Amino acid sequence: MAESLKGKPVADAIKAELTEKVASLKEKGITPKLGIIRVGARPDDLFYEGGAKKTCQIVGMDSEVFEYPEDIDQASFEKAVTEIGAKKDVNGILMFSPLPKSLDERKIRSLIPVEKDVDCLTVGGAAKVFTDDATGFPPCTPTACMEMLHFYDIPIKGKKCVVLGRSLVVGKPMAMLLLREHGTVTICHSRTENLPDVCKDADILVAAVGRAKMVTADFVKPGQIVIDVGINADPDNPGKYCGDVNFADAEPIVEKISPVPAGVGSVTTSVLCKHTIMACEMQNS
Amino acid sequence: MAESLKGKPVADAIKAELTEKVASLKEKGITPKLGIIRVGARPDDLFYEGGAKKTCQIVGMDSEVFEYPEDIDQASFEKAVTEIGAKKDVNGILMFSPLPKSLDERKIRSLIPVEKDVDCLTVGGAAKVFTDDATGFPPCTPTACMEMLHFYDIPIKGKKCVVLGRSLVVGKPMAMLLLREHGTVTICHSRTENLPDVCKDADILVAAVGRAKMVTADFVKPGQIVIDVGINADPDNPGKYCGDVNFADAEPIVEKISPVPAGVGSVTTSVLCKHTIMACEMQNS
Repeated sequence: MAESLKGKPVADAIKAELTEKVASLKEKGITPKLGIIRVGARPDDLFYEGGAKKTCQIVGMDSEVFEYPEDIDQASFEKAVTEIGAKKDVNGILMFSPLPKSLDERKIRSLIPVEKDVDCLTVGGAAKVFTDDATGFPPCTPTACMEMLHFYDIPIKGKKCVVLGRSLVVGKPMAMLLLREHGTVTICHSRTENLPDVCKDADILVAAVGRAKMVTADFVKPGQIVIDVGINADPDNPGKYCGDVNFADAEPIVEKISPVPAGVGSVTTSVLCKHTIMACEMQNS
Repeated sequence: MAESLKGKPVADAIKAELTEKVASLKEKGITPKLGIIRVGARPDDLFYEGGAKKTCQIVGMDSEVFEYPEDIDQASFEKAVTEIGAKKDVNGILMFSPLPKSLDERKIRSLIPVEKDVDCLTVGGAAKVFTDDATGFPPCTPTACMEMLHFYDIPIKGKKCVVLGRSLVVGKPMAMLLLREHGTVTICHSRTENLPDVCKDADILVAAVGRAKMVTADFVKPGQIVIDVGINADPDNPGKYCGDVNFADAEPIVEKISPVPAGVGSVTTSVLCKHTIMACEMQNS
């Protein structure tokens, strides 16, 4: 039976560290603040927003939600995002995406100041990830995976790390973060030949492909560490979520595996707050 | 005996295509121009510059060298680069690096307009590579490797592509370009455990580590395609160059291999001109 890499202890450790940081910032008269920009009211966004606000509250920082109707026009929304970006008291900005199709998302994203881009929504933020610029903030999800690996003392240096999925939100930045810590990194995807064998060869397998339970027994091997980034509707349990890994299949085989829910997803809002506090420190240094 | 993936036929094909493009641009009264910025006069830079100027001449485009003394001060050089960047007739800019230590290279690079950044010297250029933005210009060397693979009809999609080296000039952008064409991409490096085995597992091995002849017989296998990006002083033949691959070792084993010299290095100035012409077309569209 594999060790379960639960997210809560990781998030708790981050929050404890952040609580101290916020307290010492407050002694200097500074309270870090996360700005959340939301257009419309998708249930998933509201759920994440609730978690983010709660984490802010736990660590002692402020948050503010800037909510707009789905039919907001481009010019008005550009003006709003620019104004939020200019707010001195907002240190980090999270904007839910995708935006409604009527909006030019690329343009909107570019209005977020890169120094407040705590979830890597801008081109400048992506560049910092690719070029290993420590002043940048990689997206929260792959950063949460790194926090998991660190917390559970899983060695990365020299190890075969296989990232399944190549999105700009998870797969590619994940690869860069693993490479930064001297992992040997393979990025594989739907077009990969012999995909199960490629995944099976990993010491650390990060599944970030967004397909429910696609990582089956033939993708894994004993001794392996599996980090499951997927959050998918569970086809077998209506109303429930499941990961990209078929947990029942993989768990008896591998050494350690993160569950879904209660795995990586439990860590992301703590990373969001961590980034915002780092941004606040840089903005006030 | 392996097929030799020579660079000259690849460069010739690109130059033929570019000659036609330049001719049609000239009919519209437009002549693409490459601006080359050089500080000091390192022999390697002068050699590359000579090749670039010659390629420009062959395809019918203009080039201009902007040369500065090694002791130029930051302010003067910033002013010069800004002025070159603003020149309407200069469509692409190559700047030799590293700059003398007395200069802030990061700052200088940022003065090159991203739309003229034909060798990916800017952060904006790097972002375009990472985010698969087709308006960007990846560095010339990894692009030359892709031109080699295309010219010799080597399939990439689904194949195991192993990039040895993780520099921002070759390794990382090479990985992104292979990924863009649906390769399964592994980035390995000096810290990789069992490095020979990781390389041996490749269908396509790109050696870009900058260490003379380090890829020996135990890194390769029959059926493999090897692209050697290295240009190193040959420890066994003073005054000669060699690649990262021990050619004598690997050539009898693998299926196809690019030689050094006369391999990838013969293609880079053609890519530089291709990028400049693409930049010119975008600037005039």
